[in-house]
Amino acid sequence: MTPSFSRRVPDGDTVVRDVCDTCGFIAYQNPKIVAGAVVRYGTRILLCKRNIEPARGRWTLPAGYLENGESPVEGALREAFEEATAPIVIDSLLAIYTIRRLSQVQLIYRAHLDAPVFAPGPESQAVALFEPDEIPYEDIAFPTVRWALAHEREPGGPFVNPEIVDPKGPE
Amino acid sequence: MTPSFSRRVPDGDTVVRDVCDTCGFIAYQNPKIVAGAVVRYGTRILLCKRNIEPARGRWTLPAGYLENGESPVEGALREAFEEATAPIVIDSLLAIYTIRRLSQVQLIYRAHLDAPVFAPGPESQAVALFEPDEIPYEDIAFPTVRWALAHEREPGGPFVNPEIVDPKGPE
Repeated sequence: MTPSFSRRVPDGDTVVRDVCDTCGFIAYQNPKIVAGAVVRYGTRILLCKRNIEPARGRWTLPAGYLENGESPVEGALREAFEEATAPIVIDSLLAIYTIRRLSQVQLIYRAHLDAPVFAPGPESQAVALFEPDEIPYEDIAFPTVRWALAHEREPGGPFVNPEIVDPKGPE
Repeated sequence: MTPSFSRRVPDGDTVVRDVCDTCGFIAYQNPKIVAGAVVRYGTRILLCKRNIEPARGRWTLPAGYLENGESPVEGALREAFEEATAPIVIDSLLAIYTIRRLSQVQLIYRAHLDAPVFAPGPESQAVALFEPDEIPYEDIAFPTVRWALAHEREPGGPFVNPEIVDPKGPE
């Protein structure tokens, strides 16, 4: 039996929700949080080559959806370990990116490694450290990765730009 | 017909989810984002007396769940207008609070009013400006409101403490 949902405003609500035609379940849709990190080891930046879609084979920051009960810092630590087997140390919040089209709010941290310890997890084909001028910008998985890499190199305080909303189109 | 869900790990997943016994719908549960603001007008702070449960009759910051497609700043602006009819101006991110028990991540901003313009919205019994020593601390709705009021008065940069996880028990 395939779920079938109708879009309507439930009683007492003001927003259109998906309501299951079969059982009446209201599927509240709220923005999802992505937690991740720009990870430095000295002058180099840690990137993961994705082994899953979307953007399989392209490079990304360790980042992923926050799970229930987690703090964003815990989520960033977990994702770095799952994707890069990297015991990163979080330094500060770097940026908040809102991807309106995906209803996604990304909390990206500045982080570092105390030693060059990393290895690909199941979701990564490879993990590597790149000097700034070696970063494969032509093979970056998502625009937010480019934003974070640029933002991380900006001078000034640890929290320069509080929020960027995706200016246009699909990733 | 009442929805009935079983807790199990769906195929290809690693986390236990709620799966509808009737239609197979997987109700992914992710943390929800609350956006809100500590709003100043001069030395005074804007608080709303709640007209809804939980904590009806107690004082809170304008804050609420982020909706799909919104940025956190937009959510904080919307909530201030819905709850306090207040055209606030966001200054900077004040704090990120994780309420682990509720799987809630709160993004609280520093904000101000250019004029003392406000009125209770349908979810508020009253809206008022309080001098710091007049704040009704015995009638505050939630611990995070106390955290944010204290945090907002700390000296130093606009983003002092990146994250606080609730130390204990229910609100």
